[in-house]
Amino acid sequence: MSLSWQPIATDGAARAGVLRTAHGDVPTPTFMPVGTAGTVKAMTADAVRSTGAGIVLGNTYHLMLRPGAERVEELGGLHRFMDWPGPILTDSGGFQIMSLSKLRKLDADGVTFQSHLDGSSHRLTPERAMDIQHRLDATITMALDECTPFPATVEQARESMVLSMRWAARSRAAFVARPGYGLFGIVQGGVFPDLRAESVAALTGIGFEGYAVGGLAVGEGQAMMFATLECTVPLLPADRPRYLMGVGTPDDLLGAVARGIDMFDCVIPTRAGRTARAYTPEGTLNLRNARHAADPAPVQAGCPCPACARHSRAYLHHLFRAEEMLGPMLLTWHNLAYYQALMQGMRAAIIEGRFDTHAARLRAGWAPQDETA
Amino acid sequence: MSLSWQPIATDGAARAGVLRTAHGDVPTPTFMPVGTAGTVKAMTADAVRSTGAGIVLGNTYHLMLRPGAERVEELGGLHRFMDWPGPILTDSGGFQIMSLSKLRKLDADGVTFQSHLDGSSHRLTPERAMDIQHRLDATITMALDECTPFPATVEQARESMVLSMRWAARSRAAFVARPGYGLFGIVQGGVFPDLRAESVAALTGIGFEGYAVGGLAVGEGQAMMFATLECTVPLLPADRPRYLMGVGTPDDLLGAVARGIDMFDCVIPTRAGRTARAYTPEGTLNLRNARHAADPAPVQAGCPCPACARHSRAYLHHLFRAEEMLGPMLLTWHNLAYYQALMQGMRAAIIEGRFDTHAARLRAGWAPQDETA
Repeated sequence: MSLSWQPIATDGAARAGVLRTAHGDVPTPTFMPVGTAGTVKAMTADAVRSTGAGIVLGNTYHLMLRPGAERVEELGGLHRFMDWPGPILTDSGGFQIMSLSKLRKLDADGVTFQSHLDGSSHRLTPERAMDIQHRLDATITMALDECTPFPATVEQARESMVLSMRWAARSRAAFVARPGYGLFGIVQGGVFPDLRAESVAALTGIGFEGYAVGGLAVGEGQAMMFATLECTVPLLPADRPRYLMGVGTPDDLLGAVARGIDMFDCVIPTRAGRTARAYTPEGTLNLRNARHAADPAPVQAGCPCPACARHSRAYLHHLFRAEEMLGPMLLTWHNLAYYQALMQGMRAAIIEGRFDTHAARLRAGWAPQDETA
Repeated sequence: MSLSWQPIATDGAARAGVLRTAHGDVPTPTFMPVGTAGTVKAMTADAVRSTGAGIVLGNTYHLMLRPGAERVEELGGLHRFMDWPGPILTDSGGFQIMSLSKLRKLDADGVTFQSHLDGSSHRLTPERAMDIQHRLDATITMALDECTPFPATVEQARESMVLSMRWAARSRAAFVARPGYGLFGIVQGGVFPDLRAESVAALTGIGFEGYAVGGLAVGEGQAMMFATLECTVPLLPADRPRYLMGVGTPDDLLGAVARGIDMFDCVIPTRAGRTARAYTPEGTLNLRNARHAADPAPVQAGCPCPACARHSRAYLHHLFRAEEMLGPMLLTWHNLAYYQALMQGMRAAIIEGRFDTHAARLRAGWAPQDETA
């Protein structure tokens, strides 16, 4: 039997549940830390686990280029390679080919591109994307799609979506099922409700273990992203997990959970941690700012992560000023702990039927302080 | 009562004992990881503890410039700042002023120098060195000295040593005693036995809680370093701890313990960890080398550190090739674990009266493999 998602409670459109996989269960809604090249940057796997993370993401594009899917397979798969026995979701590689590689050329059958590492030539098709993710031993495999850019005309968005739907069918056909594993289809269609509906119909016609909403968080802004979710998510099967790709800030997560999303991934907490930006219930801090230089308070009072439980803002400030690796290490740890606590708090609120008041309190907390700039 | 050192066993000139301090006991011989700017690079304090380290070193030069001794004092001292409640030894700053700062000017009273960070002007005297280390809350304070360069003529070495002995007396006078804390004097005199003897006589006349051998590992080579230890260490009081500053490789540590040294510090294991070089019982490995790319074996079989217990050489190779921070993090962890296990092994051999055979076995183990280059 493939992986499944079991509902526990709903509150409005928001859902709490459990994702059941070959590599363990994950309470949802869940945030997946991004482990691009087989490592969540600046974190040991133990540290990632200690934040409460239940599933992590790996990037097919990066791993196929280095160390290579066959190499990872020989070494026992990505779980063993990166010391993450829990579930792993791998993306299909399509998004990074478009954003990172050089001289990419898309055709109906697939995409040919040059590696951003050494210029070597590679080809990715739906079949090869399935093969790579199988070799990586991904618990959740993503269908190959084209992430429609923003802005796009309705014609461009339709053509791109139709291509993705053809590739979704080929991905499904090529995917080798294993118990507790699964394949997710990706809804495209830009910001056009009719195209989104068409895409959902195509994907549900094929049938997947879960459904991702792709092509968002690409410049359309939060309001348009939420509007697109509102016209897309209700069309998705209620008994399958829903994953919003590449999102987002705490406020994005809150709004997307309110609209029925169960799974997220984003580089924001890890990237912010490496650049001295801390997420807290009182908003964001820039630990490089001089006002933190003598502050004995922790980044976030009560947070159990080592940055907060053991150190002062002044120490973090010092580490970033001195360009010590421990600065990014500790602040990445904190941000991931904050994101996990955020998801756990939302889940508890859904189960207890108080999501709206919980969301209002979170938003009020974030409002006063923003040192993001 | 000041800190003390209690002997447990001797085997030839090698000694096993316990350093008793206000911040806890440390079995000797011991290796102190270097926490230059209030952090052992690429390691959390928890990770450092997990390697078995009992005492760490902080650099006065770095900490006085950033974040400043007064700042660290306001924040509760270096132990709290860096989450290391155990003993901390701080050097006096003299060595780094000579090696790192710009436009330094030495006079009889002290040294004026420009910060390598921002060009700002600073002055260090024996009295200020004591004041800074007191504010940092160093368990072990080092007297201010001038590290005689190598090579030096006997006249240069004598003049430098005599200056250091005057500064040692002033350091002693300025040092504020606290229970379980202590001040160490530093033997200078270059590679000249008469000057070393003169320096020891001067320091023991003043009286210190421990004695360091300085001015070695500055280019004289291992044979000359060992010869200098052989003519210096026997002159030191048998009831005080002996610290060889800035040393060294595993083979250096073995030879120095054999000659009666109890304490060491060196950046070698941490720096090597950041540059893909692993220390093992079978010699050194360069994890960047292609021959490790597909190797499922751990860096060192049986080592309990997470790099070895959880990952393959192939994974470490991948991390260094991909320039992921986790590579330096894991390999620093391993090298420090190896260094601590090395010291524990030597200590057990001393206590069991089998140091010579233990040393011979260690050396035979290291011989086959050297990927240092």
